[in-house]
Parts: sequence; C-alpha cells; structure tokens
Amino acid sequence: MTTFDEIATRLEALAIEVPSWAYGNSGTRFKVFGSPGTPRTVEEKIADAATVHRFTGLAPSVALHIPWDLVDDFARLREYAEGLGVALGTINSNTFQDDDYKLGSLTHADPAVRRKAVQHNLDCIEVMHATGSRDLKIWLADGTNYPGQGDIRARQDWLAEGLAEIYVQLSDDQRLVLEYKFFEPAFYHTDVPDWGTSLVHCLGLGDRAKVCLDTGHHAPGTNIEFIVAQLLRLGRLGSFDFNSRFYADDDLIVGAADPFQLFRILVEVIRGGGFGQGSDVALMLDQCHNVEGKVPGQIRSVLNVQEMTARALLLDTAALEKARVAGDVLLANEIYMDAFYTDVRRDLAAWREERGLPADPMRAYLESGYQAQIEAERVGGAQAGWS
Amino acid sequence: MTTFDEIATRLEALAIEVPSWAYGNSGTRFKVFGSPGTPRTVEEKIADAATVHRFTGLAPSVALHIPWDLVDDFARLREYAEGLGVALGTINSNTFQDDDYKLGSLTHADPAVRRKAVQHNLDCIEVMHATGSRDLKIWLADGTNYPGQGDIRARQDWLAEGLAEIYVQLSDDQRLVLEYKFFEPAFYHTDVPDWGTSLVHCLGLGDRAKVCLDTGHHAPGTNIEFIVAQLLRLGRLGSFDFNSRFYADDDLIVGAADPFQLFRILVEVIRGGGFGQGSDVALMLDQCHNVEGKVPGQIRSVLNVQEMTARALLLDTAALEKARVAGDVLLANEIYMDAFYTDVRRDLAAWREERGLPADPMRAYLESGYQAQIEAERVGGAQAGWS
Amino acid sequence: MTTFDEIATRLEALAIEVPSWAYGNSGTRFKVFGSPGTPRTVEEKIADAATVHRFTGLAPSVALHIPWDLVDDFARLREYAEGLGVALGTINSNTFQDDDYKLGSLTHADPAVRRKAVQHNLDCIEVMHATGSRDLKIWLADGTNYPGQGDIRARQDWLAEGLAEIYVQLSDDQRLVLEYKFFEPAFYHTDVPDWGTSLVHCLGLGDRAKVCLDTGHHAPGTNIEFIVAQLLRLGRLGSFDFNSRFYADDDLIVGAADPFQLFRILVEVIRGGGFGQGSDVALMLDQCHNVEGKVPGQIRSVLNVQEMTARALLLDTAALEKARVAGDVLLANEIYMDAFYTDVRRDLAAWREERGLPADPMRAYLESGYQAQIEAERVGGAQAGWS
Amino acid sequence: MTTFDEIATRLEALAIEVPSWAYGNSGTRFKVFGSPGTPRTVEEKIADAATVHRFTGLAPSVALHIPWDLVDDFARLREYAEGLGVALGTINSNTFQDDDYKLGSLTHADPAVRRKAVQHNLDCIEVMHATGSRDLKIWLADGTNYPGQGDIRARQDWLAEGLAEIYVQLSDDQRLVLEYKFFEPAFYHTDVPDWGTSLVHCLGLGDRAKVCLDTGHHAPGTNIEFIVAQLLRLGRLGSFDFNSRFYADDDLIVGAADPFQLFRILVEVIRGGGFGQGSDVALMLDQCHNVEGKVPGQIRSVLNVQEMTARALLLDTAALEKARVAGDVLLANEIYMDAFYTDVRRDLAAWREERGLPADPMRAYLESGYQAQIEAERVGGAQAGWS
Repeated sequence: MTTFDEIATRLEALAIEVPSWAYGNSGTRFKVFGSPGTPRTVEEKIADAATVHRFTGLAPSVALHIPWDLVDDFARLREYAEGLGVALGTINSNTFQDDDYKLGSLTHADPAVRRKAVQHNLDCIEVMHATGSRDLKIWLADGTNYPGQGDIRARQDWLAEGLAEIYVQLSDDQRLVLEYKFFEPAFYHTDVPDWGTSLVHCLGLGDRAKVCLDTGHHAPGTNIEFIVAQLLRLGRLGSFDFNSRFYADDDLIVGAADPFQLFRILVEVIRGGGFGQGSDVALMLDQCHNVEGKVPGQIRSVLNVQEMTARALLLDTAALEKARVAGDVLLANEIYMDAFYTDVRRDLAAWREERGLPADPMRAYLESGYQAQIEAERVGGAQAGWS
Repeated sequence: MTTFDEIATRLEALAIEVPSWAYGNSGTRFKVFGSPGTPRTVEEKIADAATVHRFTGLAPSVALHIPWDLVDDFARLREYAEGLGVALGTINSNTFQDDDYKLGSLTHADPAVRRKAVQHNLDCIEVMHATGSRDLKIWLADGTNYPGQGDIRARQDWLAEGLAEIYVQLSDDQRLVLEYKFFEPAFYHTDVPDWGTSLVHCLGLGDRAKVCLDTGHHAPGTNIEFIVAQLLRLGRLGSFDFNSRFYADDDLIVGAADPFQLFRILVEVIRGGGFGQGSDVALMLDQCHNVEGKVPGQIRSVLNVQEMTARALLLDTAALEKARVAGDVLLANEIYMDAFYTDVRRDLAAWREERGLPADPMRAYLESGYQAQIEAERVGGAQAGWS
Repeated sequence: MTTFDEIATRLEALAIEVPSWAYGNSGTRFKVFGSPGTPRTVEEKIADAATVHRFTGLAPSVALHIPWDLVDDFARLREYAEGLGVALGTINSNTFQDDDYKLGSLTHADPAVRRKAVQHNLDCIEVMHATGSRDLKIWLADGTNYPGQGDIRARQDWLAEGLAEIYVQLSDDQRLVLEYKFFEPAFYHTDVPDWGTSLVHCLGLGDRAKVCLDTGHHAPGTNIEFIVAQLLRLGRLGSFDFNSRFYADDDLIVGAADPFQLFRILVEVIRGGGFGQGSDVALMLDQCHNVEGKVPGQIRSVLNVQEMTARALLLDTAALEKARVAGDVLLANEIYMDAFYTDVRRDLAAWREERGLPADPMRAYLESGYQAQIEAERVGGAQAGWS
Repeated sequence: MTTFDEIATRLEALAIEVPSWAYGNSGTRFKVFGSPGTPRTVEEKIADAATVHRFTGLAPSVALHIPWDLVDDFARLREYAEGLGVALGTINSNTFQDDDYKLGSLTHADPAVRRKAVQHNLDCIEVMHATGSRDLKIWLADGTNYPGQGDIRARQDWLAEGLAEIYVQLSDDQRLVLEYKFFEPAFYHTDVPDWGTSLVHCLGLGDRAKVCLDTGHHAPGTNIEFIVAQLLRLGRLGSFDFNSRFYADDDLIVGAADPFQLFRILVEVIRGGGFGQGSDVALMLDQCHNVEGKVPGQIRSVLNVQEMTARALLLDTAALEKARVAGDVLLANEIYMDAFYTDVRRDLAAWREERGLPADPMRAYLESGYQAQIEAERVGGAQAGWS
C-alpha cells in the first residue's frame, strides 16, 4: 500500500499551464454572458493567472493566444509576468477568426490563404523568441460542412506542406504541437480529426513535432487513456489540453464530468513517464467558464488535477502487477479503484500548509478580496473574450 | 409499383415554413462570418423568405423569433408579408439571451426570473393575435453545466407551473409546441432533453400542447423515425424543425448529412397521417447557413424536403405490407429502398413547370439577379444575426 | 456536513435483488467462457445468491428468469430459497429465445406469435403466484434490423394490445415492469427503445405498470439521473437493472465504468423518494461476468452500490440548496463532489461488523472455502448459461 | 456530366471477396437462429459463395477463417473452389475462441499464451502457401473489461513483438493486414482500437503490413471516408471489411444503414487510387445475416456495393474541382449529390445482360431453385456457425 507520505515529494513536480483566454468571457453560439472583473488587457489576464498560482502553487506559466494577446513588446510582457511569479508558456496560433479562413486555413483550396496561415504561424515563432516559449501549438478549425465541399485528400497534402514550412523555422529548443479535434466548428469533416492524423503529420515533420491531446476532442466513448499510453510509448505526446465534457467539446472544468476518467488518464501519464523529472509533456488547461467564476473556476481546475494526480500516484503498482500476472481481474480492478477512492484532500491540505500555501486555496481566494478588487477596478473598456 | 403521376397531386400539399433567422448571419462559438446581402430588418428577412417561396412554391410561411423580429406594428408586418405572398407563421419565444437567464428561465431557482420568462411568452401570445399565428414554439436553453448545480427534479415542477400559466392564455385555435434538445447550450443536463419529457409536459397541459421534433436534437444513433411514429400515434406531433447533423446540433441543410434518414422520417410522417389533408403537423426548417449562401441554402433545403417527400410517397405500401406479413426481410427492405433510390428529379422539374414554377429553382434564382440586388442594396446598418 | 453516523440507520434499508442468471455462464456473440463451479440447476444458482447475501447482508432476494429457471414445483423452490435466507423476487419473462420469435414476439406481424408471447407472460404470472413475486418484468428483444422490415407504427399498437392482456391478469398486489432498450439484439429499431415509450405504455395500462431502467440501455451521453428524477416525479419508476458500460449494453459490474454516474443516479433516487421506507422501487443487478468470477463479481457489485449509496446519503442537501438559491455554481458543485469524494470504506467496514457481517465481505468470501467447494462439487452436468 | 457508358468498362474491375462464415449461422449473444440449407462443411460454404458469384459476377474469391475452415488438404480445397469458379482469398486467423484467450492472445500477460497465438498465425501462413492466398488478416478480440485489469502499455509492446514474429514469416508476395476495432468483445479497452494504432504497428513491421478497415468498427459519428483517404495517401489501406451499422458493430448488409456513407467511402476509394487497375486494396464483406437469408443476403450486399460504385464513378470530378476552387459550397455539394441520386439500376441491368449475367441477380437466384435444393440436401449434421 502506497502512503501519501511516499508520494508527497513527487507531487511537487506538478505544474499546470493556464491559458490566458480562460480569464476572458466565453460562451456558446447562443450567448456569451459577461461578468464583472473580466480582464480587458493581456496584463490583467496574466495578473489573474498569477493569482491562481499564488493561491495554489500549481500554475507557474500562462499560455498566450495570438492575436488575442498580441502586444508590441513581448519582452516587456515577459518581465511583467515574471514579476508576478509566472512564466509565459505555449504560444497558440489562431487561423480561424479572419474572414479569409471561412473555408480553411492551412488546408484552404486557395494557395494565398494557405500562405497567409503559414505566415501567421511564422509570426508566432517570432513571438516565441521574445517570450521564451518552447511550444507553438497549432489547432486548426479547418474542415468542411458538406460532403463534396472540399477535397479531403488534397487538403492533407496542403496541410503537410504548410506544417513543414512552419516546422523548419523553429529553433532547436522549440517544438510544434499539433492538436486534433473530432468536430466543431466544422461539422462534416475536420482536417485533423484524430490522434492518428496528428501523429502522421508529426512523423513527417521530425522529432520536435508532437501531438496535443485535448481531452474534449474525441468521439463519444473513446478510451483516452489508451491514446495517452500509445503516444507516450511513441514519444509523441507533447501536451494536454485538460477539460471535461459530457457530450461534445463542452470545455467544462477538468474532472467535473468524469473524475474517474481523469484518474485513468493520469495513471497512464505516470505509467508512461509523462509526469515528473525527465518528462517534457506539458499539462495545460483549455476550458470555458461560461456560467461560473473565472479565477475560482481555474483554481478548482488545477486543484482537481492535483487531487487526481495524488490518487494516481497512490496506485500500488507492485500489487497491481502481481494481480495482473495472476489473471485476477477482480483483484486488479480493486487495487486500481482503491487508489481512486482514497480521499486525499486532508493530506493535501497539510501538504500545502507545509509548503506555505493555503490549506484550502478556494476559501483563501474567496476571502482574499481579490475578486472584489478586480470587479471594482476593471470597469469600462472592452472585456476580453474569445473573439 | 407507384408512379410519379399517381403522387403528383399529393405533392401539392407540401408546405414548409422557413425561419426568419435563417436569412441572418449565424456561426459557431468560434466565429460568425458575415456575408453581403444579409438582411438588416425583419422586412428584409421576409422579402428573402418570399423569394424562396417564389422560386419553389414550397415555403408559404415564415416563422418569427421574438424579440429578434419585434416590430411596433405586427398587423402591418402581416400585411407586408401577405403582399409578398407569404404568411407569418410560428412565433418562437426567446428566453436565453438575456443576462437574467444565465442559470435558467422557466426553470430558474429564482421565482422572479421564472415570472419574467412566463411574461415573455405571454407577450408572444399577444404577437400571435396580431400575426394570426397558430403556434407558440418554446425552446428552452435551460439546463446546468455541473453536477449538483441545480435541482433537476424541482426544475421539472417549476417548468410545469410556468408552462401551465402560458398555456391557459392561448386561444382555442392556438397551440403550444414544446421543443426538446439533448444538449447545448447546457452541457450537463437540459430541462427538456428528450421527447418523453416534452410529451409528459404536453399531457399535463392539454390537447393543444404538442411536441416539436428538431431532427438535430438527439443522442447519437437515435432512431428518429420511431419517435415520429410514436408521437403521431399519440396525436402529439406538433411540428418539425428540419435540419441535418453529423455530430451534434450541427444545423446543416436538411437531407445533407443523411438523406436516407430524411426518407425514413418522411415515410413515417406519411404513414402516420402527418402529411397532407387533415394533418396539423407543421414542417419547418431550423438551420444555420454558416459557410453557404443563405437564400440559396434555404432553396436547397426546401427542394431536398420536396424530393424526399416524393420518394416517400412512391413507396409501394401494398407490396411492402405483403412482404412484411410473409416475413420476407430482404424483399421488404428492397421495396423500401426502391422508393428511396428512385430518381425523381426529372419528374419534379416537369411537375414544377406544369405549375408555373421554374424547372430548376436554384438555377432560376442564381440567374434572377436577386442576390446581386440585395448585395448592392443592403449596405450599411447592422446585419441581422442570432443575437 | 452530514456524518456517517447520521446515515448509518438509513443504510440498513438497502436491499439489492440479484438475478439468478448472473451465476451462470455468459459471454459475447464471439465466445462464452465456461468456469468451474458454475451452477447447473436453479437451486445451485439460488445457493450462490444466498451466499452473496450471507457475506454482504445486501442481497435478500433473487430474480428468476422463465423458462431458464422453470421448475415443477415453485412453492418448493420458494421454501428452498427461504431456507437459505433469501426470497424469490421478480419474475422475468423470456420471449426471445424461441425460434418463433425471430422477427418479434408481442410485436410480431403474425397474431399467432403474439398470442404465444402473451401466453408465456400469463404463465409467468402463474409462477408469481407460487413464488410470491411482486413484479413481472418484461424486456423485449423485439425490433428489426433493416429499414422497411417491419411496420414500426403497427407494432406499437400490437404491443399495447398484448401488454393489456397481460396486465389485466395481474392481481392487485402485483406489478408489470416494462424495460426499455436502445438497441441490441435488434439493430435498426427496437420496439421499446426509450423511457418515453415505456412510460406511454405504462400510462395506458394502469397504476401498477412501471418503467424498468437498465443503466446500460441508453444512447451514448444520455443523462440517466435525469430520467430517474423524471420517472420518480411521475410515480412510474418501478425498478433498476444496475450494471455499467463504456460503449453499449456491456453489462459490466455496476459502478465499474463510471462511479460518478452511479453516485449521481443514487442522489436522484434518494432525492425523489426512491430509497428507503415508503419506496417501492426495486434495485436489481443485471450483469454478465464474462471474464471475472461470478459470485465475487456479484459481491463486488452489491458492495459498489452500498458504498455509493453511503456517499449519496452523505450529501449535505441543506448547504446544497443554499448554494443553488444563491446561484453559486462552483460552491454547489463542490458540496456535491464532497459527498462523492468522501471515502466511506472504513466506516462501512465498522458498520458491517456492528451488524454481524464480515468487515471485508470479499476477503471473507475468498477465505471461506465456498468457491473451492462448488468447484469441486459441481462437476459434470450442463453449466447454466444464458440460453 | 459523366454518363453510364463512360464508366461501364471501369465497373468491370469490381471484385468483392465474400467470407466463408457469412453462409453459416450467426446471431447475437441472446440467440443464434438456425436456418434450413445452412452449410455443414467448408465445401458447402464455398459452393454457396460460388453461387453468389455465378449470379452476380462480383464475388470471385472466398475468404477463409482458421480453424473454422480447417481441412486436411488445402490444395484440394483450392481445386474444388476453382472448379466452381472462385478462388480462395484472405486467410483470417482466430485467437479468440480458445479458452486460453480469455484474457488476451498476442497481448496476454502470459508469454505462453502469446506464443500460442503467434504459432496459430504461423500455421495460417502455412495454409496461405497451400491456398495461394495473399493476405493474412489479423483481428484480435484482445482487450480488457475493467480499468486496471491489464497493462495497456505493456500489451502494446507485446503486440508489436508478436506481430513482428509473424510478419517475418510471410513470403515476399504475402501481406499482413491488421484490423482495428473500437470495442467488443472487450468493453473497457481494446488493444487495436483505431486506425492510428493499426498504422503504428504496420509502420513498425514493413511495407507489406497494411490496415484493414471494417466499416462497423468505429466510434459513433466517425468520418470513415476521411480514414480511407488518409490510409490511401499513406499507401497503407490493405482491405475493407464492408458491412453497415446503426449503433455498434451491427454487421448488417453493406449500404443498408447509411447508403450515402457507402457512397462517400467509395468516392474516396476511387479518388485515392484504391479501385481498379494498380490498386491492391481488397474489398471484402464481413456481415452477419441473423434474420435474413444468407445467400440472398450476400447477393444483396455485393449488388449494393456495385450500385454505389457506379454512382461514385459517375461523379463529375472536373466540375466538382471547379466548384471547390471557386469556393462554391452549394454547387460542390450539388454536383456531389447528383452522382449519389442518379438511379443506376436500369443501366446496371443492361450492363449485366451484355456480360451474360442475369439482369436481376436476386430474382434469378430466387427462381433458380438453388435455395430449395440446399434446404432439401443439407439435412442432418451440424450447421456451420461462428463457433
């Protein structure tokens, strides 16, 4: 039986990257609800992210989204962030909100649009040099809505060409991370629908091309931990976009919809060397807080990942291996569930206090006055949002 | 074998209601692409709808959405529409775009919000008196995103109470049509997720409460024609919202994703008395033309329904019945598929010409100059859209 | 905060009915793996079921399946069961394993087959008189594989007629419980695919007709706890068939695939009065132990339900209500999750010991020698199985 | 506009491999219905397959399944088949019906079981030498039912090792074709769940390792034609197992559930060079005729593929390309649908007669007396079936 004490040190390795856009308004196609205190600038987003880190010790870096987070002087933004105790992380390119991209970006039938999309990614690499970011994350909204609308096959070739042009511009310590998505905003086909497609392109690019796994981007019933295990085995798991979903890409708080699934994923992450020293897998959040508070929503999210990581670390792998070799299905399952069912919250509270963090980060945040302060200060101006 | 001539007259009964909002811009949470010629006023929407009817003879009425289509003088709007050859149809209430409705409308935990939502529907009934509309259609975005967020059970009771207050205000020739939806914009639970729930509330209200079946509002794999058959059997199928989908509520052109499913649905509509004389089932479209032209998108949609209705009418029901009684699975299926596979397009072209309509409505529209005209005229002002 | 002590007494109300067929061999269409110790007679099945009860105190009754469990003298079988400390429970009729039922039973196009299926259910009612069973459970494999194969609408009418003939033969203290299933073994349509259809038929029959909810019989993504809440609200939830699934009707151990879903279901059961004194909802298992031991598989199953019931009872409903009224989404969710995440296993072990049960029923069973004994004794003869 | 005459010659390239097991009984886990005339020997299965070919001209080869079709002298069986006008085709290995394989075969935790599974495949290669078969098809039932039951990651490594041992024994003109399957008979994880996993293993093996795409082995909503396009692009599409499904792996007649999907798949097959001269993609059926006649079920299946291939060949690719380049979504879709909606049945009847085949193969078969003959002759003995 593994005890909490035995895993306490390993837990310190947990670092979750939070996205700048989580602090802005988001919503559905039906309505985006605004909320008081929503940031109006990149700096305000970073301040919120730093606050999440201050109360939890779990979120030492912030991912940026270009052009949403475009500033004139990224070196200065980096200083600003570091002054607040957080680093600038992954750069996310955006080739889905310009009118030109209506029918595709890197896969558009028009070479001029493809060129524009390549150039945008090259611009993002420039940003990375200034921010010190390691990863360029590419998620494409590319796809079609109607059968026959596009040439599925040709689009793959165009995609490969465009990615190659981008990849070669990366420096040796930078990576390209290619995200896949089952559907939405395209409804008939997407150009990178599954991990297989993402992998195929990464293999064609080189060692520093990796797959990004967004936990909400799969068909119903997909066994995500299998994909985690497979990509780690192949050395191609670049990063996670954590969130949770009941139906589609719901972008709910990670662990909220199916906590046991999160446990299973983290078990395979640990099993496959994707956690702790020596791992270069980035754990990121990608969520939309449509009806809940944004800063507390992010706090809840990183805490959920932490709690489930603790449970996953508690797994008695030696006993489990023994049960598996013996073919004892029920015992193996029981050992597995034992880790999941262990309530780690009290131990984690003590663990935090030992490290100078609030025992209950959520309560501490709510009592800190930060929320009231930003609601009072951030009046006027345009609230940040997805578009 | 049924021939086209034998069904020609029956085809004349086909009338499809088009929604005013189909002519405005729509999109996904990622981006709404604007397009030239998009209406800026209700009148322009109705003009577009009337154009669809002029070229196809299939769309004699327009559904309105309140408050999107709110005008001071609905009697005058009615005259305007009738002057263009179309009637005003179903009134759709909207209780999802006000900030108050963030956590629900008719199912909100706060009685004041519930009251507001009821009142909005009562206001819609006032509009119906002016427009001469028969149906009040209620679709609720109500639901929750997180387990525990709301009291699922209590919300059903509140919903029943609110609907009852609305229902009693209808006049004897008016109906309440309650739509259900599997998910979106709520992601954990929706308060009217399935036809069963909609039916339960209709049964509680009275004979003039009916179910609205949106073909995109079901779980993956749901047999929709079964629901059609069941609701017709119970006398509770009020209306259709036609569209098509591959994954979720994609709102694509009806018949585009799975034409055979549309055929099966229409076969059960006809089988169950939901088509033609004596039927009060309203056939409506509810689609989003995100990447295609809006007026031609609507023309394609009504033509798809017409073509598939013709195929469904061609079904040799006598031969089919014989095969079924004989337990001949393959023959029954062959007879069924024979109707589906019959290419009715040439016959329909002739049928249209006999009735003074263009043989090819799409070509006729594209050559008519209407599109160029609205693109030139409708410059400036705010384009209509979902919000 | 609710404590375990406060719920200890309420937990005593938990009683789970186990199915006789869980102790026989089962499998997939690809292979049924046999296992040593599998019962060869009804009596051996009941002995196994009684063993589950002896070690857990949770399974005081056994459901029978006719004709699999047909005996000449049911009164004697009842005595036998009672002698072992368990009662005979629900009678399950079977109209899917006779060749006549290839194309349907109560919905067959041939009246003679429908008559046969009605008669089989009447015979089951006779059995119920002898066994003292309250519930006749009807699950139909009826449906079609190919579009056009059957008349979906007519089959509903035949179904209604057949059920009516059966229902009237029940005595006043007996109930008809109608199960629904999304798909399998029929692949195009099933005649009772959803709770709505089951409810419609129950409403047509009378007060003692109820819906049986099998947790594995839904479309992907279906919110099952919503259905639970709705059926309890309507007074029509008759019974559960508990199991779990990842994809289809996998019939895995309840709570194994998605423990949080089981929690949510049980919360709504308790919320809606479906648990404890005054409730007539039957909690049953319906699972297939294809690769795991059968008796221990059943022990694990009832323990899973017990553990999750304890968690659901721990929910601080007063605090939750307060958070909901305040519209505090994150707090409501946290209160909800707090109950789920509370590890009740140690408390339950003590609770068991206080009541003369083994603290760890699984270990106690494995050490009891029962398994070795039945493996030694039950040699020769035909092992019981699904067919 | 492409005409039927222009595609007539290309259609001659269509050849569909039928599986021996389609002629035996099959069913669901609930019931296997027997039927008169079912073969009792491999020879009788081949005779039935040859009959399908005789009436359709579409099914020139028969796939075998080992050990179901094990005979002492495969050279003689080959002669027998060739005497009836058909060739022996793909050899399918079976590592799922022995008791040893309960917890896996090539992925079993026990090296002895893995060795046995490898050996079985090596034995199949021996059979291939005698039958002249090109392809060894491996489908694995391997997987687990419960989280924790197996080591997902280690199983991938074992799988890679086993496949490598098999692959090296193939001669230069033989191929290994690895099938993937989303779920069933394993319900928590399968070891080859998706095309990505199959591809990863094929890439590790060599050029003659290819992916087998069974159209029923995907998650709900998966865009199969995309996978077809991708695998053809990579030169790794080895073969199809055609069938159709509404929910899971229903194994219905190809084209029966979603004819438009079959069209889209065949369009991509042709687009990607997977059809006709120069293609080495094997088109096979893999279906279960549970409620319909087996020989006529196969006839219907190959005719469905033929009809849809004709439609796909009719696609006006030049016009389509033009519309795509112009970004005309509706026109591109219309051109695409035009091919699908064209009724080719009359042209195909004439095409058949020109080639000495019956215009209506189904009617010709039913009137031929073959069915009556086999029902009379094949009395006694054990009917062939899945197990």
